[in-house]
Amino acid sequence: MTTTPDSVVRAYIAEHSSQFFADLKEWLRIPSISGQPERHPDVRRSAEWLAAKLRETGFPTVEVWETAGLPAVFAEWPSGDPNAPTVVVYGHHDVQPVDPVELWESDPFEPVERGERLVGRGAADDKGQVFFHTLGVRAHLAVTGRTAPAVNLKLIVEGEEESGSPHFADLLRRHKDRLACDVVVVSDTGMWSKDTPTTTTAMRGLTDCQIDFYGPENDIHSGSFGGAVPNPATELCRVLAQLHDEHGRVTIPGFYDDVVELTERERELIARLPFDEKAWLANAKSRAPWGEAGFSTLERVWARPTAEVNGVWGGYTGPGHKTIIPAEAHAKVSFRLVADQDPAKIQELFTAWLSDRVPDGIEYRVEFFGPGVRPCLTPLDHPALQALTRALERAFEKEILYTREGGSGPEADLQDILEAPVVFLGMSLPDDGWHAPNEKVEMPLLLKGAEAAAYLWQDLAESLRK
Amino acid sequence: MTTTPDSVVRAYIAEHSSQFFADLKEWLRIPSISGQPERHPDVRRSAEWLAAKLRETGFPTVEVWETAGLPAVFAEWPSGDPNAPTVVVYGHHDVQPVDPVELWESDPFEPVERGERLVGRGAADDKGQVFFHTLGVRAHLAVTGRTAPAVNLKLIVEGEEESGSPHFADLLRRHKDRLACDVVVVSDTGMWSKDTPTTTTAMRGLTDCQIDFYGPENDIHSGSFGGAVPNPATELCRVLAQLHDEHGRVTIPGFYDDVVELTERERELIARLPFDEKAWLANAKSRAPWGEAGFSTLERVWARPTAEVNGVWGGYTGPGHKTIIPAEAHAKVSFRLVADQDPAKIQELFTAWLSDRVPDGIEYRVEFFGPGVRPCLTPLDHPALQALTRALERAFEKEILYTREGGSGPEADLQDILEAPVVFLGMSLPDDGWHAPNEKVEMPLLLKGAEAAAYLWQDLAESLRK
Repeated sequence: MTTTPDSVVRAYIAEHSSQFFADLKEWLRIPSISGQPERHPDVRRSAEWLAAKLRETGFPTVEVWETAGLPAVFAEWPSGDPNAPTVVVYGHHDVQPVDPVELWESDPFEPVERGERLVGRGAADDKGQVFFHTLGVRAHLAVTGRTAPAVNLKLIVEGEEESGSPHFADLLRRHKDRLACDVVVVSDTGMWSKDTPTTTTAMRGLTDCQIDFYGPENDIHSGSFGGAVPNPATELCRVLAQLHDEHGRVTIPGFYDDVVELTERERELIARLPFDEKAWLANAKSRAPWGEAGFSTLERVWARPTAEVNGVWGGYTGPGHKTIIPAEAHAKVSFRLVADQDPAKIQELFTAWLSDRVPDGIEYRVEFFGPGVRPCLTPLDHPALQALTRALERAFEKEILYTREGGSGPEADLQDILEAPVVFLGMSLPDDGWHAPNEKVEMPLLLKGAEAAAYLWQDLAESLRK
Repeated sequence: MTTTPDSVVRAYIAEHSSQFFADLKEWLRIPSISGQPERHPDVRRSAEWLAAKLRETGFPTVEVWETAGLPAVFAEWPSGDPNAPTVVVYGHHDVQPVDPVELWESDPFEPVERGERLVGRGAADDKGQVFFHTLGVRAHLAVTGRTAPAVNLKLIVEGEEESGSPHFADLLRRHKDRLACDVVVVSDTGMWSKDTPTTTTAMRGLTDCQIDFYGPENDIHSGSFGGAVPNPATELCRVLAQLHDEHGRVTIPGFYDDVVELTERERELIARLPFDEKAWLANAKSRAPWGEAGFSTLERVWARPTAEVNGVWGGYTGPGHKTIIPAEAHAKVSFRLVADQDPAKIQELFTAWLSDRVPDGIEYRVEFFGPGVRPCLTPLDHPALQALTRALERAFEKEILYTREGGSGPEADLQDILEAPVVFLGMSLPDDGWHAPNEKVEMPLLLKGAEAAAYLWQDLAESLRK
C-alpha cells in the first residue's frame, strides 16, 4: 500500500475548508423540500447546482436523472485502471420541511456558523455529508498526484429520500448497469459521538401487515350472547399475545432460522460503547427496558428481530360503556428483521402461524403492506468494511467502533438491486437535529468525512483490487 | 287449598276479553315514548290513563308517583287479611321509539288485530303484559267471590324503563316502605314459545370498566426502539388474552367462588328445552359456538359468568401503515355475573388480578362504570316460584319449564332494594319484535297471563301465608 503522509491530506483539506463551507452554504440556501410541491422547483435547482459543482470538482460525467418524481444526480469518474474496483456513493439532496419554523433560531435556509457548528436545514441530512465527498476526492487526487481517483468513483444523489424514496428502486433498476459496483458507500448516517467515532454495519429490515378478525355480523348484546360465541376482540388479543414467549422471543416457528447471530467479537465491541441506558430510555420516552432475554438494549434494537403491535382497534371505543360483543377487531403488526431474514419468508411464516391460531367462528384476513424491506449487514471481516475502518481510524486517530441502525432505509435497495455490500461513511451526531428545528452539523466532522474518503479510495483501490 | 274450577276462571276471562282488548288498544294509542322529549306529555297521559283504569278495576289506592324524570303508577289493594302475603307486580308503561317507521305495516300507535295477534308499539313490551293484571285480579275476585284479593296486591309501573330506568332505584328507595312485599312478580319478560311455556328464574348481573395502558410518552419509532421497550398495545393484548384459560374459564382467582352452580335438576330441565343451536347462532349472527367447557350454549348464556372485551383501541388505526410503538392502549371490559357473585367483589378481584399482570414500564388505570348490577336468581324450590309454576301449569295445562335471562335489568333493583325474591310472569314470545317495527303480542297469551295471575294470587295467599 502506497502511504501518503496523513498530515498532507489534512493540510490540503484545511487549506480548502473555507471554500468548501462557502460552497456548502450556497447549496443549503436552496430550500429543496421534496415533501412540499411548491418547493419542487427548488429541488430541481438543487440537483442542477450539485451537478454543476460535481463537474467543477472534476467528474467527467455528470447527469441529472429524471424519475417519475424529482430528479437525482449521477456522477462518474473512472479511474482508468481496468483492475480498479468500483464504488457507488449514496446520498440525497432533498431536505425535510422546516415546520415548526418559529422554533428555528435563524432562517433554516440562511446557514449560519455558531462556533464549530453550521446551522441550517440539510446541514447534516444530507447535503453536508454528500458535499464532503467533493473535498474528499480532490484531497485524494492532490495527495496521490493522480488525475483520476484510484477507484472508479460513482455518485448517486437522490431527490426524494425525505419523501420515502418512492421512485428510487425503479431508478436503480433502470440504471443498474451504469451503477454496477463492488461496494456502496452510504453517507447519510451518523456516528455514536464526537469522542466515539463509529460506523454502521447493519440496518434492520421490515415487513408489516393488517389483520382483520370478523365475529358476529354486527355488534351483538353481551348479555344475550356473551359467553357462548367467540368475541373477535378477545380472540385477536389472544393471538397477538402469543407473538412473544415469556422470554420476549417471537414464537413464530422458523422466525429466527435465518438470523445471523451476533459474534462474540461484535457483542464485545457493542458492550464497549459508552451506552447510558437511562439517557436512552429518556430518549425513548419510556419507563423501563423490555425485550428478548439474553440481549442488551443495544443488541435488541440493532441485531434482533421484533414483532410489534403498531395499532389495534375494534368494538366500542367511545366515552362510557356499551356492553357488546364486537363484530370486528383489527390490528396492524410490524416485524423488524435482521440479516438474513427474508421479508417474503417471514410473511409466509406469520400467515401460517396466524391461520393455526384463529378459532372456529372467526373469519380473518391478513394483508401485508407490500413486499417489505430486506435487512442489510456487512460483516466485520468484509474487506470493504475493514478498509472503511482503517480510513476512519486514520482520520480520527482513534479506534473505530461499530453501530447498527434499528430502522430500515433505501440502503436495502442499494444492496439488493446493485448486488453489492453497503458500508456507511456517516459524520452526523445524534444531536444534529435531523427533521427538527435548528438542524446543525459539526464542521470539523465534515472535514473528517472528507479526510476519511480520501484515505478510503486509496485503500479500496488496493484491498478490493481485482 | 280452595280449588276454584279452572273452567270458571277461563269463562270469566273469555267473557271479558273483548272489553279487555278494547281498553288495551286505547292505551296503546298513547305514544308514551320515554326516549323522545316531545313525547313526554304522552308518557304522563299514559300514566294518568293507567291510574284511571286501575281505579276502575277496583284498586282502592292508585297514585301517580313523580320522579326526577317521568312518572310511575302505584296501586295497592290490601287483602284485609293480616296474615296474607304481599305481592308487588312490576311493569312499565313507556314504550320504545318507532323508527324506522317506514318498516311498520300499520301505524305503530293505531293497534290492529291480525288473526290472534295484536300489532302496535307496546303491545308486548310492556303495556299488554301490565294490563293483563287488571283482568287477572278481577277474574281472581270473581271466581273466589272475594271483594279484595287474597294477597295484598301492589303494582309499580314505571315510565322510564325504555330509557334505562335512570330514576327507578331512587323511586324504590324513597317508597321502600309502601312497596314492602314478600315477592315481586315481574311481567316484562317472555317465554320460550307458544308450545313450550316457561318462566324465567334468573338474570345475570354486570360490571364493566375501562382499562388504560400507558407506555412511551408519545408514539415512538418502531425501528429506533422496537424490541427494547414495552409496547402498551402488545401488553394490553397479553393481559386481555389471560382473561380466559384454554377451557374458556375466566382465570381471575376467586371469580367463581360465589357462583351458585346449576343443580342436576336445573341442567336436566334446561336440556329438555327444544333448543335449536343453528337457529340460535343465526340469531347471534355468529359462526360457531364458543365458551366455557362442560356447559351447553344455554347454560353458558344463562348460568355462567363471563368476561368480554367490548372494545379495544390504541396506536395507529388509520389506512395504510405506521410503524410505531403506541403511547397508549385501551380496552373496555365487561363481566356478566350470576348469583351470588357481587359486582363490588368482582371489581376488587379484577383490579388485583390486573395489577399483578401489568409489566414494568407500563402505567395503567382501571375505572369501573358505576357499582354494576347484581345478578338475581330464584331457586326452583322457592315457594313463590313453585306457586308460579303451579299457576302457569293450570293456565297452560302443560308442564312448565324454566329459562333465564343472559342480560341484566331493573329487576335486580327490585330484588335488592325491596329485599324480596323476584319471579317472572311473562307472556311475550321471542318473535314479538320488542324494540322493532311491527311489535305484536299473541292475544291468547295475554289471556293466559290473566288466568295465571288469577290462580297465582290464590295460590300465594296460601303458600306464602304468614
